Amino acid sequence: MYRNKGCGEINEGDIGKEVALCGWVYRYRDHGGLIFTDLRDRTGIAQIVYSLEISEKVHALAHSLRAEFVIAIKGNVCRRPEGTENLDVKTGIVEVYASELKILNTSEPLPFMLENDAIVSDTLRFKYRYLDLRRPFMMNNLLLRHQTTKTIRDYLDALGFLEIETPMLTKSTPEGARDYLVPSRLNPGSFYALPQSPQLFKQILMCAGVDKYFQIVKCFRDEDLRADRQPEFTQVDMEMSFVGVDDVITVVEGILKTVYEGVLNVKVETPFERLTYKDAMERFGTDKPDMRFGLELKDMADIVAQSSFKVFLDVLKNGGRVKAICGKDMAALSRKDMDNLTEHAQSLGAKGLAWIKVKDGFESPIKKFFTDELLRQMAERLGAVQGDTMLFVADKEAVVHDVLGRLRLDIAKTNGIIGADDRFLWVVDFPLFEWNAADDRFEAMHHPFTSPTDEGIDLIQANKALADKDIATLTSKAYDIVLNGYEIGGGSIRIHQTTLQKKMLELLGISETDAEEKFGFLLDALKYGAPPHGGVALGLDRLVMLMAGSETIRDVIAFPKTQKASCLLSNAPSQVQDSQLKELHIKLR
Amino acid sequence: MYRNKGCGEINEGDIGKEVALCGWVYRYRDHGGLIFTDLRDRTGIAQIVYSLEISEKVHALAHSLRAEFVIAIKGNVCRRPEGTENLDVKTGIVEVYASELKILNTSEPLPFMLENDAIVSDTLRFKYRYLDLRRPFMMNNLLLRHQTTKTIRDYLDALGFLEIETPMLTKSTPEGARDYLVPSRLNPGSFYALPQSPQLFKQILMCAGVDKYFQIVKCFRDEDLRADRQPEFTQVDMEMSFVGVDDVITVVEGILKTVYEGVLNVKVETPFERLTYKDAMERFGTDKPDMRFGLELKDMADIVAQSSFKVFLDVLKNGGRVKAICGKDMAALSRKDMDNLTEHAQSLGAKGLAWIKVKDGFESPIKKFFTDELLRQMAERLGAVQGDTMLFVADKEAVVHDVLGRLRLDIAKTNGIIGADDRFLWVVDFPLFEWNAADDRFEAMHHPFTSPTDEGIDLIQANKALADKDIATLTSKAYDIVLNGYEIGGGSIRIHQTTLQKKMLELLGISETDAEEKFGFLLDALKYGAPPHGGVALGLDRLVMLMAGSETIRDVIAFPKTQKASCLLSNAPSQVQDSQLKELHIKLR
Repeated sequence: MYRNKGCGEINEGDIGKEVALCGWVYRYRDHGGLIFTDLRDRTGIAQIVYSLEISEKVHALAHSLRAEFVIAIKGNVCRRPEGTENLDVKTGIVEVYASELKILNTSEPLPFMLENDAIVSDTLRFKYRYLDLRRPFMMNNLLLRHQTTKTIRDYLDALGFLEIETPMLTKSTPEGARDYLVPSRLNPGSFYALPQSPQLFKQILMCAGVDKYFQIVKCFRDEDLRADRQPEFTQVDMEMSFVGVDDVITVVEGILKTVYEGVLNVKVETPFERLTYKDAMERFGTDKPDMRFGLELKDMADIVAQSSFKVFLDVLKNGGRVKAICGKDMAALSRKDMDNLTEHAQSLGAKGLAWIKVKDGFESPIKKFFTDELLRQMAERLGAVQGDTMLFVADKEAVVHDVLGRLRLDIAKTNGIIGADDRFLWVVDFPLFEWNAADDRFEAMHHPFTSPTDEGIDLIQANKALADKDIATLTSKAYDIVLNGYEIGGGSIRIHQTTLQKKMLELLGISETDAEEKFGFLLDALKYGAPPHGGVALGLDRLVMLMAGSETIRDVIAFPKTQKASCLLSNAPSQVQDSQLKELHIKLR
Repeated sequence: MYRNKGCGEINEGDIGKEVALCGWVYRYRDHGGLIFTDLRDRTGIAQIVYSLEISEKVHALAHSLRAEFVIAIKGNVCRRPEGTENLDVKTGIVEVYASELKILNTSEPLPFMLENDAIVSDTLRFKYRYLDLRRPFMMNNLLLRHQTTKTIRDYLDALGFLEIETPMLTKSTPEGARDYLVPSRLNPGSFYALPQSPQLFKQILMCAGVDKYFQIVKCFRDEDLRADRQPEFTQVDMEMSFVGVDDVITVVEGILKTVYEGVLNVKVETPFERLTYKDAMERFGTDKPDMRFGLELKDMADIVAQSSFKVFLDVLKNGGRVKAICGKDMAALSRKDMDNLTEHAQSLGAKGLAWIKVKDGFESPIKKFFTDELLRQMAERLGAVQGDTMLFVADKEAVVHDVLGRLRLDIAKTNGIIGADDRFLWVVDFPLFEWNAADDRFEAMHHPFTSPTDEGIDLIQANKALADKDIATLTSKAYDIVLNGYEIGGGSIRIHQTTLQKKMLELLGISETDAEEKFGFLLDALKYGAPPHGGVALGLDRLVMLMAGSETIRDVIAFPKTQKASCLLSNAPSQVQDSQLKELHIKLR
């Protein structure tokens, strides 16, 4: 037996006892007759003392210890001399006088320091991931992730959900993101695809009568990895039968409440706030608003319509929108600062940024187009007071929302007005379709199996041709869960009836042949007694990242890939032998 | 809300109450004024009665019900009339008089019956897996699998194991089985491999100080799918630091005991029996002996050496073995039966099968070569009594063991002497190397990271060239867990020191360049303070199959593939668009 305790587990109750510990030499101090090492394992850090008086042999051997040597010691637990306790560490009251020391392995000098605050390049961190993971904050992230998945599994198991594995080698359906393909050796010229999600299979499981399914599962998307994305990511995937929107929402709220309270000890109120997609866009310019601060977007059309400012009037005439937000304390910004801000807005897609400072009256290049009364009305609507700046964007609705939504975030960050408490939010009643201008057709906003709302179903099944503008206003039983401005999950009630599913595919312009080819097995399954069902998927990486307070999902994934989707540890992907390709019936282009 | 109970959950306590149930119409009986349906959901079956007296409308609608229609009902729970109870079903005391009935979905006539004992071709079962899974025994298998993984996770979590995900897109190391490859779009000409196991990554996690790791994880092998194999399969993968063989074995025994007792309510004694590899081969002719019956192989060399039977004498002279088993009650077999048995042995690789019946003395074509005393001694050694037949194979050791090992199983099945109780067994002290005659070199019996036994380590590190015969006798700290003749898992203590690992690779004839290329990152990791560690992987599919009493792992996998590695449900693998291949920098050969 190597040990009988973890380094972080020794405490006052052990004083006078002999313990056996194993771990890594973290810090080393030689005080002549006494050598001290901090010994680290996953449980924490213990101070080990090697005293000339206790054992010359052990003391001599301790001289050869270096950082990250792996050792096993035996020794007596003692109270540290008064004044030398370290209350920052949970074992800081005690130390262990080593009577035995065994060096289990040595270590070469490290390429970087393991302290939490050591600044290390990503390249080194990924290449030496086994060292990076030894850093206490990374080890904590692994623990946090484990606890989170364990808590989720316990919660869902208690509700009667069955965890069921769906295939990794599945069928390519070139919709949405790009598939990772796997050539088949036994079926020349054919390919598997790695799943982008288990969507079809979980719906099949509902048709099978599984009733409540979940899976914590790897999914794959071969996307260009800008932003904080990984080619393989992990979903908490769920599906339930005989449910409506509220049933799914209740389960997700239960999961998140339990995880936050159980793992982080952070109290979470349920039910969460809900916004319709429409309200979210109107008030925050995005379908994943950060609710930790206000700074809402306000429609200014009725007021600016009374002005003589032609830019605004033209936009309104052409069906555009004029909206504004209140830049708190931004009246002090210089003309140069305002120019920079305008450039920033332009880089986000706006033609320009109009501003009116509230500063001993009003100050603005466009002030002359507005009466005092109009200026006063605008300030009132935005809650702008002395020292603030009103910021206007006038453009097509999508541009206005996008630009002001992002400016809102930037301003909140700059001004430090983001609240400390996590804010969960449901965004509901998503549009069923969105117009794809490039392809001149409607696309499913979520996916083609998403159920319309009940009124939508009636309209679609009314057997009348629907005008494009009617189609555009249809909403769906889809919902997203948002945390602090991040979408951490989403789902919908699905279509469970063949007739409605066929109508939907018609509206999407997907031919019967195409539909049969792509997801014929789901269409078949609907014919044999499919129950009403719906579900959701949570992005585990992002959820744990937010729980950990990290800036990147790479800090909560044991072995992440780079922006070029390569693994600096194993050097995957790599070249393979031509004999391997030959067996797979492929060759390089 | 669709329902407030599961169909299988109503009982006497509900009598007089109104319940809302949902499910599938399983059986339908029309008795005129009363229509009965069995309503099925995952929880069980409830009898629903539609009475003309309660609601004409509901009764009329019930007329339109067909098998597998999905319905929601409301109604009063009543005690069934005396004499009509069905005690085979847990809800068999009660029935529900429906006051409301809603048809949620219809079903076309099914391609096969859903009863457990319906005989359905695999092709139909896989194509309509959503119907196949509705069959009660299949739904139970899904439940059993869920409960098994849940129990394992709870057990390991309580012991401090962290579940950590390792990459699915990893590096091809063409050793052992064939890899599934995934072309990289972002790295032209490069490929990922799907993992055959997380072996290297879990060792890296030990080097990272994770201490106790596990993962229930998909693994992939592109093998020809004879026997009961799947291209993707699931492992319970574990690794621990600062452990020896017994520590790993204790954890596995704890898991299996807890799963069998908690999930199956079957008592399991620990510790399990252990056999060395050598003893297993000698006594049972295999490294995964079925311990539920005896019929052990006995060495007959010392006795037959005293005979005049040239065939046996020649084999012994050439270094071969002569061993025998006792065919219980097989003396009654005809000459024709014995010829068939001999043919069977030959098909297994033997040159022939010698037999001596114990039947009012001894009866055998080779009787004349043996004295009565020798015949008596042989019968005594084999425990052969009146009515038995002694069966001999003389050949090279590997052939003798293989043939007699298989005959032992066949005879046990034919004669029905297999005990009812599950028998777990550890096989330990595996050879470190095995000779690859084709390549004229030694190969690792497990893998190149397996630790030799302590004596082996001393020998290897003694810095003397080892003779082939010494290498052949080295044993390792590897262990397999066997259940009823199936290998359900295996593992080893790993090498944690660079010097020893290099020596091992030398002995395996793997050059430094090759080693660097294939698993350089592990060799690197060993340099920076790798702790002593070891682990194990359990085959989840096979374990659950044995727990379910199934004949094939396909019965415990929701969506299995065929022998040709295709999915009859989704039609994966399939052809893809050339544009997809182009992006991946590959084309078909």
